[in-house]
Formats: sequence, C-alpha cells, structure tokens
Amino acid sequence: MQNWLLQRAYLTPERQALQFEGRTYTWYTLVEQAKRRAGQLITAGITPHSRIALLSPNSDELVITIYAGMLLQCELVMCNCRLSATEIQAQLQDAEVTQVIATSEQQHKVASNVILLEEVQQKEVRIVDMATEWQEQNTLSIMYTSGTTGSPKGVRQTYGNHLSSALSASLNVGMSPEDVWLCTMPLFHVSGFSILMRAVIYGNEVLLYERFDTAEVVHQIITGKATHMSVVAYTLAQILTQLEQQNLDVPPSFKLMLAGGGTIPERYLLRAQQANIRIAQTYGMTETCSQTATLPPQDALRKLGSTGKPLFFNAMRIEGTTEPFIQGEICVKGPHVTPAYIGKFATRNTMQDGWLHTGDIGYFDDEGYLYVVDRRADLIISGGENIYPAEIEQVLLGHAMVLEAGVCGIEDERWGSVPAAFIVVTTSYRQEEVEAYCKAHLASYKCPKHWFVVSQLPRNASNKIMRHQLRELLT
Amino acid sequence: MQNWLLQRAYLTPERQALQFEGRTYTWYTLVEQAKRRAGQLITAGITPHSRIALLSPNSDELVITIYAGMLLQCELVMCNCRLSATEIQAQLQDAEVTQVIATSEQQHKVASNVILLEEVQQKEVRIVDMATEWQEQNTLSIMYTSGTTGSPKGVRQTYGNHLSSALSASLNVGMSPEDVWLCTMPLFHVSGFSILMRAVIYGNEVLLYERFDTAEVVHQIITGKATHMSVVAYTLAQILTQLEQQNLDVPPSFKLMLAGGGTIPERYLLRAQQANIRIAQTYGMTETCSQTATLPPQDALRKLGSTGKPLFFNAMRIEGTTEPFIQGEICVKGPHVTPAYIGKFATRNTMQDGWLHTGDIGYFDDEGYLYVVDRRADLIISGGENIYPAEIEQVLLGHAMVLEAGVCGIEDERWGSVPAAFIVVTTSYRQEEVEAYCKAHLASYKCPKHWFVVSQLPRNASNKIMRHQLRELLT
Repeated sequence: MQNWLLQRAYLTPERQALQFEGRTYTWYTLVEQAKRRAGQLITAGITPHSRIALLSPNSDELVITIYAGMLLQCELVMCNCRLSATEIQAQLQDAEVTQVIATSEQQHKVASNVILLEEVQQKEVRIVDMATEWQEQNTLSIMYTSGTTGSPKGVRQTYGNHLSSALSASLNVGMSPEDVWLCTMPLFHVSGFSILMRAVIYGNEVLLYERFDTAEVVHQIITGKATHMSVVAYTLAQILTQLEQQNLDVPPSFKLMLAGGGTIPERYLLRAQQANIRIAQTYGMTETCSQTATLPPQDALRKLGSTGKPLFFNAMRIEGTTEPFIQGEICVKGPHVTPAYIGKFATRNTMQDGWLHTGDIGYFDDEGYLYVVDRRADLIISGGENIYPAEIEQVLLGHAMVLEAGVCGIEDERWGSVPAAFIVVTTSYRQEEVEAYCKAHLASYKCPKHWFVVSQLPRNASNKIMRHQLRELLT
Repeated sequence: MQNWLLQRAYLTPERQALQFEGRTYTWYTLVEQAKRRAGQLITAGITPHSRIALLSPNSDELVITIYAGMLLQCELVMCNCRLSATEIQAQLQDAEVTQVIATSEQQHKVASNVILLEEVQQKEVRIVDMATEWQEQNTLSIMYTSGTTGSPKGVRQTYGNHLSSALSASLNVGMSPEDVWLCTMPLFHVSGFSILMRAVIYGNEVLLYERFDTAEVVHQIITGKATHMSVVAYTLAQILTQLEQQNLDVPPSFKLMLAGGGTIPERYLLRAQQANIRIAQTYGMTETCSQTATLPPQDALRKLGSTGKPLFFNAMRIEGTTEPFIQGEICVKGPHVTPAYIGKFATRNTMQDGWLHTGDIGYFDDEGYLYVVDRRADLIISGGENIYPAEIEQVLLGHAMVLEAGVCGIEDERWGSVPAAFIVVTTSYRQEEVEAYCKAHLASYKCPKHWFVVSQLPRNASNKIMRHQLRELLT
C-alpha cells in the first residue's frame, strides 16, 4: 500500500488537517512538519524501523512526532502519561525500546535512553529517504493492556489493523471529506490514536485537545465546527448538562458521538435524543484496534444496552453456542485483530482457532445484536480508563501490612465506577501507609478510593477470589 | 474476509437494496432471493467454484443471479449483450466456461451449454452450503476488453480488486448509508458492475434500469430519490437538456455524477454547474476494476480536461519521466489492478515491474493532476462504449473485397465519436455487401458509420497504419 502520509499530502494538500491550541495545519503543512521531524529524529539518534516509545500528553507536537515515526517506519510504543514511573518502566523494559521520547514533565518516569521532545524540536533536520510504500503486516503502534493476568501485555497493532478498522468504521456510519473529529481522548489509547489514523486515511480534520473541557467542547459543537466526537459516559453527561443548563441547540452539522468504555445509561440516551445528539455505542479493545461492534444511532433506544453488530469486515461469536440469548465468552475475528503480543507475552497466542477470545461475557439477541454483560476479569471502567483488579491486588499484596487483597468496582456518580479494596491485614496495619504505597506504584486513577478491612475474602473451591461477591460483603 | 452478502443481510436487513421496474428489495429479501437462486443454479447443473457466463441486459433477475453466483463462488464472465454471436462465441470459447446463463432473447448467440435464465427461475431450490468467508485473491468477475491487439482479452477481477476499488472510491468522495445510486450503465461493464459491488459493501440502494431513459432519470434526480449516478458525456448532455428545457431544479440531495468514458466538454461542465450538478470526472478501465483517478467536483472547472489524482490506495506514473507536463504512457499500481488475463492471454503479464501499462498517453501537471491526452490504441469511445480500431480492421480484412483497412473515430454530435472505415478495395467492391458482413460479425455500435474508399493508407516505416493520419486524408 501507499505511504498514507505522502499520499494524503499529495491528494488533498490544502484541506485542513489539525488544530491544537489555536495552531492550524493543512495536510500539506502537517506532513511537511512530520518530514522535518523525521529528519530531527534521525539527528537525535533514532534508527528507522526501530522500536521507540512516546510519552506525552496530547499536543500537535505529539501528532507530528507520531506521523514522523510512521514515516521512519518505527514501531511506536504509546505510553500512558497517567501511569506511575514503576508502571512505565515495566512497559519500557518489556518492550525493549531503543529510545523514549518524552516531554520534560514526563521524563522523570524514564530511567534511561530518554530524549526530550522539546529538544528533538530544536535538532538539525537531516534528509531522510522515506519509503513510498508500506506493508500491511508491519507494526505501527504498541499499546499495553492488562487483561485477566494483571500483568500488562504489549499489543501489536499493524498498519493493516488500523487500515481495516478505519475502513470498516466508515462503512458503518459513513464518512465525508468535510467531517471534523473533535478529539479529547488521549492519543496513547486506541480510542484517540485511531482518530489520528482515520484522519489521514479519510483526509479529515482533527480538533485536538490535551484534556476534556466541557465549555470548549460544547462551543465547537454548537458553532457547527465539529461533526464527530468520541465520548465515554462521564464526558457525555458533562456535555449534556451544559447544553441543558444553557438551553443550547445542537446544529444538524453535528453528526455523531461515538460512545465507548462501557454502557451508556438509558437516561443519558434519552437526554441526548432530546438534545438532538446521535449516539453510536461501541464495543472494542486494544486488541481489536478500536471498534469491533457499534450500535447505529437509530437503534440506540430500541436496542438499549446493546453495542450493536460487528463492523462489515468482522465476525463475532459467543463461545460454545450459536443460539441467541445464551451467554458466553465473546470471540472476535477480522483484519483488525492484533496478530501478536510483544515482550514476555510474545509467545502467547492471541488467537484460538483463528478467534480472539476477549474474556468478556455477552450474548446475541435474536436479531444478532450484541449485549456485553460482564467485562473481562471484572474490569473496572473509570472515566473511560480500564482498570484491572488483579493489577491493583498485586500491588496491595506487595505491602507487608496486607495479607490478602481483593478489588472490585463500586459505582460512582462522576466516574461511572471506582476501585474499592477489600483487605485482610496485619495487626500493625496503617491505612495511610498502604495508600501512600499504592500512589507510588499505581496511576492515581487506579488507587482504591474505598477501603474495607475484612476478616476473610470470599473464595471459591480452588481458592480464587470471587470478586463479584466482594460487593455483597458490604450489605 | 466475510461473505459480503451474508454479512450485509445480517447487518442491515431492512435497508433498501434494489429497485427495478417497480419491484423493490431490502438487503434481507435480496440476499434471500440470491440464496434461493444459488440453490436453483445447483439444480440447473452449475457447480460451485466453476466458471460460468452471464448474458443478459440489466434486470433484478440478473442482479439476483450475479449475487447467487458469488454465493457459489463461481467466476462470472459478464458478456456484453450488444455483441454479435461471433463475438460472444469467441469469448465463451476463450473463457472455457462450463455453462452460459442467457435470457431467451440472447440465447441464439450461444452455441452450446446454454441455460435460460427464465428457466433457472423455475427450478427447484436445493439447499446449498455457502462459505461464510471469502478469499481476496479469488476471481469474482471476468470482462473482455480489446486493447491494442484487437483481440479481446478476458480480464480477471478478484474480490480484492473490487473491494479496494469500492473502498478507495468512498475515501475519495465520501459515502453515507443513505446514498442511492441510479444505474443505467450495463452490469456487464465494470462501470455498472462496480455499482453493484459498492452497493453490497456500502449497504446502499441501487435504482436499476435496463437502459438510459432521460425522463425517468431526471424524475429520480429532481424528486430527491437518487443521490449518485454514473454518466458519460452523451447521457449527461441529455439530462442537462431536459433540466434546462423544463426549467427544473436539482435538489441538494443529489450529490454527485461520476462521469467516465472520455473527457467531458467544458460547455457541459458549465451547464452542469448552472444546473447545480456536481461532476466528478474519472479515468479507469476494465483492468483497474473501475476508477483509478477521479477529479473532485470542486476542481472540475479549475482543472479542465483533467481526470484528477489517483485514489487513496493507488499510485500512477508516466513511463520514463517524473517531470510535470512531459507526456508518456500512463502506468498504474494498486490493489485494484487485475492480477492476470485468462484464456489465450493468460500467460501475458499484465504488469511490468509491478506496474500496469495502460497504453494510454498522458501527463501530470505541476500539482499532480493527470491529463489523458490519447487513449490507448486510438480507442474510439462511442456513447460510453469502447471501440478498438484494430478489432474492426480485422473484420474488414476478413472480407474478400477489402484489401487494406484502417479505422479511426470521427466526431459525432450525439455519440461523441463513431468509427469511420478507410479501405482499399478490389474492383468487384460493393459497399452494401461489406456493411452487411460487418453487421454479422460486429456489435452494431462498432460497425463503421462512415466509409471512405482510398487508393492507399498512410503507413509508417514498418508498414503499420498511422491511424492519426487517417482523418487528415479527408481534408
């Protein structure tokens, strides 16, 4: 296939590509900047085709550096800025990256081989020989996700994965060269990164933000600038509240909100309908390079709680059954599914019989709509971030005062869900000390927000903690 | 990849799929009909994966049979109904088809193994085991095109060719699930066939017609039913004239006319602009499975005479140069390019160094827009049909009264161009007899419309006819 960036700059040079903090780029200027940056990366010691990590919040400079990395055909490990130094270093070690490009604010998390993004921007621009053709099976990005084991696994996302994801998404909801995506999702998550990939493939503009700001988002929607946006339940609620309080009209130019990261409550959907906002609920994961099933807006209320049907290129099935309404593990197949993990999980097959086993439990109704009833490994989704109980439990057990630990999500008005810790402790236990220990080892959104000291944890016959019973301990 | 038809019927069963002579089909009913037809084809003796020919004008029954053939994974040789029995039989023999499905009106052109379409429709429906997954490299359709040799070559068009063509077309002009394509192009040409393939991939509706009818087309446009249509200069002129004479308004719901088969005159573009019709001029051929370069409507007048830039997945270059404004042979590369011919041309490489050499002459301007200056082998495009002079010359030379023959196109107000014959004859020459001979051996649109008896033909040093000098003989 053609080099997407060179092709995009050739085909639609004058179309708007990116806007960030008042700075705007056409596809021509953005790709020119990416070419320059590629030359600067070479000066900074980056080798084409090598595996490098990026550690930066959203910015135009991050976008330019991502695109530059693609021009150099590097494998880009996208690190989550919210993680602690311990977490980041574990990932960097597992990925065996040659260099890490980090902003000055983030660099303290990296032990070695760090290059400051701000310094790269000052480097001499070397002339780089760039491939005009790319290979589908090459790795574009790598993102870490924990899953059932509690140990983060690096997921390889190829050019083919991203391309088929972008194309099947467009077949589902349509696309127009005039679409403008508002992106407040972090680019280090596939939800944000995939917006960037769709942008270059579709030739669309991205309005990028470092973080979600309700007033700014609402402004871009009601003035008719933004046509699409990705949200989670929490950000959707903020937007709806502001629209309602200020009695604002959403113009028909706003086409779609893609809502991921767990089910959107019915009352939000009704409010969205009232506000003239079309919601497409979606189900996907890092291993499926973003969406794998999406519910069209016209079905939002008729199929409440469903995440829709597979996208055009994908197949989905429930393990062990072809009957409707029978629950089982959700399995996915298609050109968007990662071919492999990297690092210590590299030898683990992502597939069984050609199908990705997601660990999530769900069923299909009699019209073939998917309902996800239980997220993998008791996944806690907090403000759109995935939190795996096993990972928190391992940290808790690392402290001498904690003898046993179980973690589950507890409903939270603002974040949807937050982690709660159930622990069996020593006589010397002091909560402040364990909390401080968590803060040092975990991203703050993963630190337990509720603490319960108990005499024992509910366990099954093989002594595994039954996390779904933890909440019952409270009642 | 998934079986497109089963996937489409699963994903959007209730969406409109097809309309023909007042009969309408949703995607569910259309695919159900195709499944039944597949069962009837089995009863009629068709073997899955075999190569069969279809010989029928446009109809819903033809669409159902094409889709049924895909469900059986047959290779479909799409025969041009306008061809003579001699021409059809040469193609069938070359393609070595096991059976031919023809309408009763067309069956006289087929010597053996013909099955009447009307009879297939009455056959018992057998249960068929259909593959749920398809392979990109499998052949979907085969179409004959003459090219420089004058001898029709069967072009293999794979599932991957059609898929990438449909996807890159959508990236160029956008697509919406609500789009409705009006199709008066014959389904046996790639211009029409690709509308059917895009329909199943996009999930769009097709308004199908057996032939172009100005009043009906204008009705579908002005009532807001149709959103897209493929035209050639001749049909575009008819539509514009009717709109102008009746002073009709084209609603904004009509999005695009895709104009192929040669350059659209400037005065048509100006009239189209006046009528509020957006024109995208395109360049493509059977070997590229439809479009390979298309000029966006906003550039129609700024880049007069250009056919635009390559589609997103494609690359194009001019043989022997990378400089703008230098003419040379147009070469094309991409996943939409046929992998091979069949039959007696099966061993001929379609590619040289990975590039399809089109035989057409063109150049790029300094912004990378393609201009086609000379069609391959002095191609005559008459009302959207391609006519190759060499093929007509061979027929002429088959008659004893003709000693030498040269054919070129002459401008025609209605058809754009029509073939003219320049012949050196015997003393016993009688024009009526040669004309009748042509009619028996050639589709009527290929028969010369102008006859010139000359004493000698312009030839170059190696005695090849210089067709571009033929017209000069008249002045």
